Amino acid sequence: VNITIVGAGLAGSFLALCLGQRGEHRIDIYDRLPDPTAATGDRSSMNLGLSRRGLEALEHVGLRDTVQASAVPMRGRLVHDKNGRLRFTPYGDGGILAIGRDDLSATLVRAAGELPGVTFHFGLRCIDVDKELPAARFVDKQAGGEFVAPSDIVIGADGVFSVVRRAMHHRELAAYRQDYLEWGWRELTIGPGPDGSHRMAADVFHLWPRGDSMVFAHPNRDGSFTCTCVLPLRGASGPEPLASVDDVETHFRELFPDLLRLAPDIADQCLRRPTTHLLSIRTSPWHHDSKVVLVGDACHAVYPFLAQGMNAAFEDCIELDKCLRTHARDRPAAFAAYQQARKRNTDALAELSERNFSELRDTARSRLVRLEKACDTRLERLLGGRWMPLHSMVTNTTMPYAQAEQQAKRQRLLLGLLGSSLTVAAGVPIGRGLLSTARSGRRRTR
Amino acid sequence: VNITIVGAGLAGSFLALCLGQRGEHRIDIYDRLPDPTAATGDRSSMNLGLSRRGLEALEHVGLRDTVQASAVPMRGRLVHDKNGRLRFTPYGDGGILAIGRDDLSATLVRAAGELPGVTFHFGLRCIDVDKELPAARFVDKQAGGEFVAPSDIVIGADGVFSVVRRAMHHRELAAYRQDYLEWGWRELTIGPGPDGSHRMAADVFHLWPRGDSMVFAHPNRDGSFTCTCVLPLRGASGPEPLASVDDVETHFRELFPDLLRLAPDIADQCLRRPTTHLLSIRTSPWHHDSKVVLVGDACHAVYPFLAQGMNAAFEDCIELDKCLRTHARDRPAAFAAYQQARKRNTDALAELSERNFSELRDTARSRLVRLEKACDTRLERLLGGRWMPLHSMVTNTTMPYAQAEQQAKRQRLLLGLLGSSLTVAAGVPIGRGLLSTARSGRRRTR
Repeated sequence: VNITIVGAGLAGSFLALCLGQRGEHRIDIYDRLPDPTAATGDRSSMNLGLSRRGLEALEHVGLRDTVQASAVPMRGRLVHDKNGRLRFTPYGDGGILAIGRDDLSATLVRAAGELPGVTFHFGLRCIDVDKELPAARFVDKQAGGEFVAPSDIVIGADGVFSVVRRAMHHRELAAYRQDYLEWGWRELTIGPGPDGSHRMAADVFHLWPRGDSMVFAHPNRDGSFTCTCVLPLRGASGPEPLASVDDVETHFRELFPDLLRLAPDIADQCLRRPTTHLLSIRTSPWHHDSKVVLVGDACHAVYPFLAQGMNAAFEDCIELDKCLRTHARDRPAAFAAYQQARKRNTDALAELSERNFSELRDTARSRLVRLEKACDTRLERLLGGRWMPLHSMVTNTTMPYAQAEQQAKRQRLLLGLLGSSLTVAAGVPIGRGLLSTARSGRRRTR
Repeated sequence: VNITIVGAGLAGSFLALCLGQRGEHRIDIYDRLPDPTAATGDRSSMNLGLSRRGLEALEHVGLRDTVQASAVPMRGRLVHDKNGRLRFTPYGDGGILAIGRDDLSATLVRAAGELPGVTFHFGLRCIDVDKELPAARFVDKQAGGEFVAPSDIVIGADGVFSVVRRAMHHRELAAYRQDYLEWGWRELTIGPGPDGSHRMAADVFHLWPRGDSMVFAHPNRDGSFTCTCVLPLRGASGPEPLASVDDVETHFRELFPDLLRLAPDIADQCLRRPTTHLLSIRTSPWHHDSKVVLVGDACHAVYPFLAQGMNAAFEDCIELDKCLRTHARDRPAAFAAYQQARKRNTDALAELSERNFSELRDTARSRLVRLEKACDTRLERLLGGRWMPLHSMVTNTTMPYAQAEQQAKRQRLLLGLLGSSLTVAAGVPIGRGLLSTARSGRRRTR
């Protein structure tokens, strides 16, 4: 079978690995960006969280050890409060690995490119797909010409603004939902100390929650930290917050004085960096006939606060490969089975990621959210495997997201009941607090 | 102020009336279709339900009497069950008027066209909007040329596939949600009897609920009925249901034998008519700066089963006109206030319309849904103004939709509690039934 994959990011190149290892297909994979394995100066330092799901997926394609060797393990979350006090929550079993996006991307492209039948084409931007042939049309960004690549299957791994998705849904009955947050983020860096070592603990995820804005940081192997600064899109003083040196300096001095000490140029960095928006996308169908199918952000972009986007995309690829083998003679059935297996889980992940954002924000504001988290952790210790905080189910297991959502819902209900009983039994006001927290946890961010 | 309105359907021409009556604006209104006031042969017979909100809106522009004179009043809903038995539910206060879409459209265009400063342009299709100038670009369907109309404000009243909305949201941070039902509809006609009179009661809305498919009929003044046949998009036997004469005849013989008697050619009509899809759209923002704004289906298409699409669009127009007057010197504030006032209500309407579809379907299947409806009606009589079925709040009042939704939610809860108490008090199984019905009523159709 001739397969065209549009997008050679993490999802596309991982899919090329899954499909290519079977040796049955001829796979051409295209990307508008240059080859990530060719060293260039201006690579982004963006960092991703690789958790259990992602690791098992990498194991599936034989890359777990390679990737693990270049990642930084984080054994828990360290919250920095406004007065500089620290609060540590362990991630438990396995933890999360911080990995540079570009490193991982290069590893995947190199491994897939070595497979017979897999060919990468860089610097080619997809501008349209004929979903009936099917064929993808590309424009050569350097040379300027256009060309058409016909094949048996076109796979859209081209991310949140997927051209494949748009072409596939054109004039079809499709459901589509796009939400965004009133917050955006900018990427900042805390450089290494004078001796090249990390300026803070290097084996944890750092979080500075401050209600309407927050910063978090992943450790890098070179002694630096990659920080993500999340802030409201509209400032008090105008449509763009932090637009002037004064704004930025005041912002950091008031909310993140310790960050200013760690990286005196952080205000300056913040001014120079563009704001990235936060989009969530749910859609259906994920495929057209036997000819076009989507994976990763192209069919289910989620807010990044649970750090599961990549992990979920890898799960897609493995499932798609599996369905194509199970339904080898009926490709529409294979695609339908793939969507059937994945969509309820990625819908659940979207839901959980929305909720997690509110929770991260409220960690700063609400003692009740913290209390609930503490109960959660204590009950896990008390009840062992029968009780697991949502974050653990998402991060430390490969339990389907929809199942994790269901179990978390049951646990929240139990926690509420427990709170009420305590109130009744002891007359303490804690129960009402827990109940109302459980309720507000269910509210959705729009 | 120079205003361009794109779309001279019900929303656009009603808006031209609202804005034009102030005599302060120069309004140009464009539509891709020909002039509805010029008599043509092939007009659709589509029928709409005009309820309290719509009538008050028409009163606002001085057209209530004119429109009322050409409409057919319906005083309630008559359900035809599978065995030909009839069940009548009065609409209460005022009822609903059945009105031909084209008649109403012609009335609005005629009235607006007489206002100084309002000019209609037909046969011109909008293909793009420059939201910064702003200016709309049109193509002349007959002559073939293109031209650009610059103005101070471009208003998108161009329906569910709004070109104005698409252009306005291009490269902006926008939320957009499009859902569809796995059902579509075809329009059928029951002709008048041999003496020109109606073949069924002419003062009611007729409904044949049959679970997965249903038919409803509005009376026309000429003795005919316009029927809407709702059916699943995928048949048991293939992707398109009712694609062959056999399919159709079996379908009607089994489910709607009385309809076959009333209109022997109904199977034939059903085969010839195209299937129309059912789309629901929620989006935000509704406006761009001081330059572009949306009304009606362009910003909130809903499923038609509550018959409120037109009524809600009229409410939009009146609110927009009001906000433009209140914030005469700050147009962005006017547009923001308009969206603020309307969106939560049209969101509630979208929600209610989705739910109403499931309810209409289940009227056939579930005795519990019927029981709940009966309780609802009885409580209204018992408690007077303090209890009102949802349908009455939507149809017989101008209570904002969001408020109607809230009150209906409270009532459903009370009905559930009442049911439980009855169960406890009398040991009858009715309570559980009501509770589970109330719960399933909250489930959403996707």
